[in-house]
Amino acid sequence: MRKIALFLLFPLISVSQNPVKYVKPIIGTQKMGHTFPGATVPFGAVQLSPDTDTIPYERNGKYNGEVYKYCAGYQYDDKTIVGFSHTHFSGTGHSDLGDFLVMPTVGALQMNPGVATNPKGGFRSAFSHANETAEAGYYKVLLDDDKIWAEMTASQRVGMHQYTFPKSEQSHIILDLMSGIYNYSDKNVWTYVRVVNDTLITGYRQTNGWARTRTVYFAMSFSKPFRSYGQKNFDAKQTYRGFWRKFNQDDNFPEIAGKQIRMHFDFATSENEKIKIKFALSPVSQDNALENMQAEIAHWDFEKVKNDAQASWNKELSKINIDASEDDKVNFYTSMYHTFLGPTIYTDINGQYKGLDQNVHQANGFTNYTTFSLWDTYRALHPFFNLVQPKRNADMVQSMLAHYDQSALKMLPIWSHYANDNWCMSGYHAVSVIADAAVKGVYTGDANKALEACVATANKRNYEGIGSYIDKGFIPAEKSGISVSNTLEYAYDDWAIAQLADKLGKKDLAAQFLKRSENWKNQFNPQTGFMQERLDNGDFKPKADVMSTHGQGFIEGNSWNYSFFVPQNPAALADAMGGRKKFGERLDTLFTMHLPDAFFAETEDITRDGIIGGYVHGNEPAHHVAYLYNWSDTPWKTQAQIRRILKMQYKNAPDGLGGNDDCGQMSAWYIFSSLGFYPVAPGSDMYSLGSPAVKNAQIHLENGKTFSVETVNQGDKNVYVKKVLLNGKPITDFTIRHSDIVNGGKLVFYLSASPSR
Amino acid sequence: MRKIALFLLFPLISVSQNPVKYVKPIIGTQKMGHTFPGATVPFGAVQLSPDTDTIPYERNGKYNGEVYKYCAGYQYDDKTIVGFSHTHFSGTGHSDLGDFLVMPTVGALQMNPGVATNPKGGFRSAFSHANETAEAGYYKVLLDDDKIWAEMTASQRVGMHQYTFPKSEQSHIILDLMSGIYNYSDKNVWTYVRVVNDTLITGYRQTNGWARTRTVYFAMSFSKPFRSYGQKNFDAKQTYRGFWRKFNQDDNFPEIAGKQIRMHFDFATSENEKIKIKFALSPVSQDNALENMQAEIAHWDFEKVKNDAQASWNKELSKINIDASEDDKVNFYTSMYHTFLGPTIYTDINGQYKGLDQNVHQANGFTNYTTFSLWDTYRALHPFFNLVQPKRNADMVQSMLAHYDQSALKMLPIWSHYANDNWCMSGYHAVSVIADAAVKGVYTGDANKALEACVATANKRNYEGIGSYIDKGFIPAEKSGISVSNTLEYAYDDWAIAQLADKLGKKDLAAQFLKRSENWKNQFNPQTGFMQERLDNGDFKPKADVMSTHGQGFIEGNSWNYSFFVPQNPAALADAMGGRKKFGERLDTLFTMHLPDAFFAETEDITRDGIIGGYVHGNEPAHHVAYLYNWSDTPWKTQAQIRRILKMQYKNAPDGLGGNDDCGQMSAWYIFSSLGFYPVAPGSDMYSLGSPAVKNAQIHLENGKTFSVETVNQGDKNVYVKKVLLNGKPITDFTIRHSDIVNGGKLVFYLSASPSR
Repeated sequence: MRKIALFLLFPLISVSQNPVKYVKPIIGTQKMGHTFPGATVPFGAVQLSPDTDTIPYERNGKYNGEVYKYCAGYQYDDKTIVGFSHTHFSGTGHSDLGDFLVMPTVGALQMNPGVATNPKGGFRSAFSHANETAEAGYYKVLLDDDKIWAEMTASQRVGMHQYTFPKSEQSHIILDLMSGIYNYSDKNVWTYVRVVNDTLITGYRQTNGWARTRTVYFAMSFSKPFRSYGQKNFDAKQTYRGFWRKFNQDDNFPEIAGKQIRMHFDFATSENEKIKIKFALSPVSQDNALENMQAEIAHWDFEKVKNDAQASWNKELSKINIDASEDDKVNFYTSMYHTFLGPTIYTDINGQYKGLDQNVHQANGFTNYTTFSLWDTYRALHPFFNLVQPKRNADMVQSMLAHYDQSALKMLPIWSHYANDNWCMSGYHAVSVIADAAVKGVYTGDANKALEACVATANKRNYEGIGSYIDKGFIPAEKSGISVSNTLEYAYDDWAIAQLADKLGKKDLAAQFLKRSENWKNQFNPQTGFMQERLDNGDFKPKADVMSTHGQGFIEGNSWNYSFFVPQNPAALADAMGGRKKFGERLDTLFTMHLPDAFFAETEDITRDGIIGGYVHGNEPAHHVAYLYNWSDTPWKTQAQIRRILKMQYKNAPDGLGGNDDCGQMSAWYIFSSLGFYPVAPGSDMYSLGSPAVKNAQIHLENGKTFSVETVNQGDKNVYVKKVLLNGKPITDFTIRHSDIVNGGKLVFYLSASPSR
Repeated sequence: MRKIALFLLFPLISVSQNPVKYVKPIIGTQKMGHTFPGATVPFGAVQLSPDTDTIPYERNGKYNGEVYKYCAGYQYDDKTIVGFSHTHFSGTGHSDLGDFLVMPTVGALQMNPGVATNPKGGFRSAFSHANETAEAGYYKVLLDDDKIWAEMTASQRVGMHQYTFPKSEQSHIILDLMSGIYNYSDKNVWTYVRVVNDTLITGYRQTNGWARTRTVYFAMSFSKPFRSYGQKNFDAKQTYRGFWRKFNQDDNFPEIAGKQIRMHFDFATSENEKIKIKFALSPVSQDNALENMQAEIAHWDFEKVKNDAQASWNKELSKINIDASEDDKVNFYTSMYHTFLGPTIYTDINGQYKGLDQNVHQANGFTNYTTFSLWDTYRALHPFFNLVQPKRNADMVQSMLAHYDQSALKMLPIWSHYANDNWCMSGYHAVSVIADAAVKGVYTGDANKALEACVATANKRNYEGIGSYIDKGFIPAEKSGISVSNTLEYAYDDWAIAQLADKLGKKDLAAQFLKRSENWKNQFNPQTGFMQERLDNGDFKPKADVMSTHGQGFIEGNSWNYSFFVPQNPAALADAMGGRKKFGERLDTLFTMHLPDAFFAETEDITRDGIIGGYVHGNEPAHHVAYLYNWSDTPWKTQAQIRRILKMQYKNAPDGLGGNDDCGQMSAWYIFSSLGFYPVAPGSDMYSLGSPAVKNAQIHLENGKTFSVETVNQGDKNVYVKKVLLNGKPITDFTIRHSDIVNGGKLVFYLSASPSR
């Protein structure tokens, strides 16, 4: 009996490790991280978070650079909060969303947000980080202007607010339907609101932003009936409004529509009275939003919602247990937290979602996800999901294939969110995610159909130079400003397609795409040893500047970094660069060069924080580069550089991220590298070994097995790997396979302060 | 055997009367009728009709009066056609719609419509009435510029085009998604188009017009694949367009969105090659539009669709057979045609529709209808439906009750179309339609619920003075610019509610509303004998101008006309005006007075064509007035005036209507009056007798019975009724009941050239 009791206790002890306590959502909210500190559950459709400013996209008709700071709505250095909105990207470098901003106020009604230098002039409020708590699934702050405590939590499709008011006859809750992220004057296309009764409103907001045609439906429920309500319509004009003036539509009028609308709901509150709000979203309809609310939060117990949210985080975060320093635990679990912020659920509780074709679809047998920042996330995020979220990653593949089915273009997503594609960045990396999931046995759906979608996308001749790429093996600089990035990334993607074709026994197709995957060679200038732009006549474009990130055929990178972009065949690249020794020296130069200030002035998304020598970790194209030493004659330098990047680029601080987290890609790099291995070429089942930063770790797999990473002689200076044993057998090729992990087992790194040359 | 054969032939002979041949949709297209000449089926959701101009709502930022001429898109005097669009109101005095304008062209692509004075400068074309055919369910015209024959027909939810092209390598079909009726610069909210393949496109258009939030989905199928296609986007700016420029989105790009878009589809055509288009609409989704298309027109046989359309018209029009002059038959069947143009079906083939709450609903057990111009149509159109379209009218009542259920305001529709209410005009006349249908046994649904909706609407205190009306018995002039119209119409509506309550045995409620129905007395100034504005203090507003239609408390009428608006109790009105003799003299004065030119200058919707003396037939408030002689001591003058109005106000000519047809109300008046009776007070089961214009008529009822109207001694001068026999029994009170009709029977008018004093 006693033994059984102890046995039963064991999982409870495991849960009581409570990794949520190591999650600090505030990390990355300062400077370039572009993360948000608010409340959400893993992969939740709602990200309820404070917006510290809603800088418009344009000022005096021109692009306003400051808007970039507010990709996630929140900047740590700001002193005021405008309100709390329900949708946010995590870590992007362009943005959208920020839907349905809610703000509690007391006193005379203010329908404008005011300015940061004078928060009392509007409904925004001063706040202090001293009175701010940001946890996984929970956010709390004191709004200084009116002494209102604001608390937030969430379920998958519902945000829950709890505002603790002072005593007042004039307490208000503002619902700002104009506010948004990357808001420009014409972004709001339409808003509709229906006041169903004195505790419930429903409606939708339609925008024309980064997502061209985006509608979010909502249902908003108040714990206490409002005494009165009203709108202020900021539309420039409403020609037919005269006809609608049979009522005073500004006050207590329940059928509201327009382009620029803010609403207020008015209450009398007693001292410390709590007013709670449930705010549900749907991509499909008001009815679905209401159904989502009723299904997910049928009560008004804020603490229960918070506890459920944090339990769901503990469940996901407990998939990896680590032993490490407290700071490393913070960085590790915050990274895991960041990786589980997206892609987000884009299916209502009844299985409906809006497709790319703007029709309503039923997700049969899968959960539909949205927000695929694939240029970033194909690298490490989706491979990470193949380890710890295989079910979800299979659904994400399914979601991308549904996108393909719904695409009139017949293309897989490039950068998609909310039933739109913005075709941002280069490559067609959905094929990498699909191939990786299929090769690793994670995607078990119709692989032939998946292959067909990959091939169709890769053969879309009128997209970004693909026609030239197919015909000539490279993209002439005349055809595209990012011709070299495109060729290099297409070549890698084609290799991934070849892996999938090979797995399906389609030898001809595999050979065809394997051949295409060698196109990187056509951008490689053997005279200079760098990837360079070529002209339509085949000549390399003269006067290449291998340091510059502008006008050289690259995107978010220069030739120095991009010249290493042959993840599918580092050995061949090393050969092209003069052999293993010279390859190592080239890597040395990259990691030690000094970049001039001019470099930072002209390069987007990057500051000195995000670089080591000339190696840019804050952008993605070089994320595999530190592992390339494994193909040089100085493989131990991978180990040293990885440990260095882990230390330098990830810190337990608001400015702890050296660049945009990019929907979890930066964080997924951290997790893999901390554990000692990394997927240099997703689409293969191989991981390249580095040097683990954890003392040890257990990865609890969905198949019930556990894979352990252990270290011997771990320490800050002991970054070098003397030997590695997989289930007791030494590894000599710096490689483990996916199957080694999913079969369960133990990987032991013996560490040392000096390299094993 | 022979006998049987003859018997079987009889119905065929009946059908072979082919009333469609008497329908001239061109009647009312000149001047003020605001009818359209295009193709539609009875109550069809598609009205596919030529637009001769798309005058913008504003010019130099101000209202452009000319837009009023184009309420139905077509003016007979115009010399050019811009294109053929799919939705049109019939006879309204304000407007909306004109969705999805299609135009065939040949030669160099022109993406602007050009101007009427130089049609060759744009895609519009000159045309001539000599080459134009407008029939029920069919329209044909030669487009002179490019010598293209355009033909149109329709099913309930699908318009079918047939264009006969000349030989050309450059034949085009333009799809203009910007064009619309009552179009102002900001009306187009959003457009989305998906090119599914080279013969099919789907999408939607969302507008902010008279209907505030209106979306129409479509599916467009071509009989021949287009060789190429493209768009021109006229949006002022698209901030994020750069991101979408990964493709050339102007040419052959299948995912299109924006606010101001025109598309072109390009073909090579041989001489006389026909290209056909099926264009389906849905209020719900692209999928539903496609389903509607496939369900209604599964083939490409234009002639079959045309024949089906005309057969459906013959079926509806054959519900009344008349013997009359050829001109009278034209006027009669064209009037019937006009009455069956709306309300229109607003339910997809699968039963879904968009509700007032902007949610998708399933119509269970009824067809949902839209476009309720109730201030006009409660008078004679819906009563006419109670005779010949009881099933549809019951569904219309059901549709209005669904509107009530979906209304956050909890009101029945005032003037509703496409899931919106524009609250146009005065009164809450849905209650009249409901009461009339219930009292006559046509609406057999939940009458208690219907009564609840009527009472809730009538007690909506913050709507148009209702609060004052309830409290004071009249509406102070300070509260409303149309206070007198409102009081008079509310009083009538309240009487209708009382009839419904009485039928349901709710005696208290009936008494309460019967009392309210006497509120007309509070606007009647016994000093002047006219209905007049009163001030909040109870005094009549000084210096009333009983001739003016502006600033006197009326809408679309002056005090002279509106003072007769007590349809629920003409006897009491006659008493108030000094008794039956004086009442008759007042009516004489109305019909003989001379109106000064200034009257027409300041009065909307009316010209000298629409008046007789001071009696305004072109607007609705006096539509019952000619029948009021039946309550005077000169009842024969009803007979003379009715025959006079029938002759003067309805002509077999493009300008044959003296005022807006107003969704069939003008035409319904014609039909009732031609048959010799009229519903002076819908909500009662009584009709007041006039003088029939037909020689005889048979009304074939849905219950299988027939009611006949016969005349003895009919003739143009024999307008007076000597005696009337109902099933052989004389009628002495100028009244028949609805039950007299639906039980079947015969009404015989004995006519004479001199009155029976």
